[in-house]
Amino acid sequence: MQSLQQKASEWSGVSTDDAFAIDDGDLFHTLGLQTFVTLSTNFYNRVYDDDEEWFRSIFGNSDKETAIQNQYEFLVQRMGGPPLYSQRRGHPALIARHRPFPVTHEAAERWLHHMRQALDSTSAIDHDSKIKLMNFFRHTAYFLVAGVERKDQHHHTPCKDAALKQHPCKNF
Amino acid sequence: MQSLQQKASEWSGVSTDDAFAIDDGDLFHTLGLQTFVTLSTNFYNRVYDDDEEWFRSIFGNSDKETAIQNQYEFLVQRMGGPPLYSQRRGHPALIARHRPFPVTHEAAERWLHHMRQALDSTSAIDHDSKIKLMNFFRHTAYFLVAGVERKDQHHHTPCKDAALKQHPCKNF
Repeated sequence: MQSLQQKASEWSGVSTDDAFAIDDGDLFHTLGLQTFVTLSTNFYNRVYDDDEEWFRSIFGNSDKETAIQNQYEFLVQRMGGPPLYSQRRGHPALIARHRPFPVTHEAAERWLHHMRQALDSTSAIDHDSKIKLMNFFRHTAYFLVAGVERKDQHHHTPCKDAALKQHPCKNF
Repeated sequence: MQSLQQKASEWSGVSTDDAFAIDDGDLFHTLGLQTFVTLSTNFYNRVYDDDEEWFRSIFGNSDKETAIQNQYEFLVQRMGGPPLYSQRRGHPALIARHRPFPVTHEAAERWLHHMRQALDSTSAIDHDSKIKLMNFFRHTAYFLVAGVERKDQHHHTPCKDAALKQHPCKNF
């Protein structure tokens, strides 16, 4: 069985090295807190105004301000800044926290579409940082598609003890 | 419904501030790669030799050398060192990767018992770092108990569409 990482690279077309090139420099100190706040605000303004109702509705039960804060705090922490996210919410636990949502290939592409536009409209982000961030986002989106899909496999197993013993996450 | 973070603090007795005091300094540069390799080796040597068969058997399908590498690469990355874990395996996704295992309160305490001894037997770890690491481990262990328990709630729901709509992770 393929690892999550292998699936993420295959589906996204982004190698692991490219996905985690965010760690080569120190993106937080290059860009600063306000840039990440602006990026996440630009992103969720687009998402909550999306013409595509099927996508917009995924976020329907979440408050926009909270969504913005969750995202920029995660990004600040992941890009080398202070651990704002963990101080407030604990480990990112990315797959588990996305379990309630339909993270399909189509949803990943729509998410990435808005993020690409949000990056383009955040002028403080230089070209090199933009490429690193986009590779990270693209790989991570498909990492989540792969991770949440395993949950779905699990959902569809019949309610038998035998099925529980063959947990689809065994090969994580 | 309580957040994962609140449950982790309540059950572990470790506040979020104390759990993430690991980020106050730069533990990776204080301790160095070899110290984390030694810590994880000491830890898994104890785990794989545990007299308590119920606990030892949790790791029965995993290779000890791989378990050691997974742990020290995660710790190095989380404590401010190079992102060894993500380069090889992607995001830590701590809850999802623990889903196959019975992460009970009892298992958390047994895990912490071995980790406390592993820390004590790793002489390169100074007193202050040891306290920070132990608080991090204690809080994280119960964060995982809380996260994996939500999965279990899910397992135990009947196979009805209605049940799927009320996903226990909604309040993550």
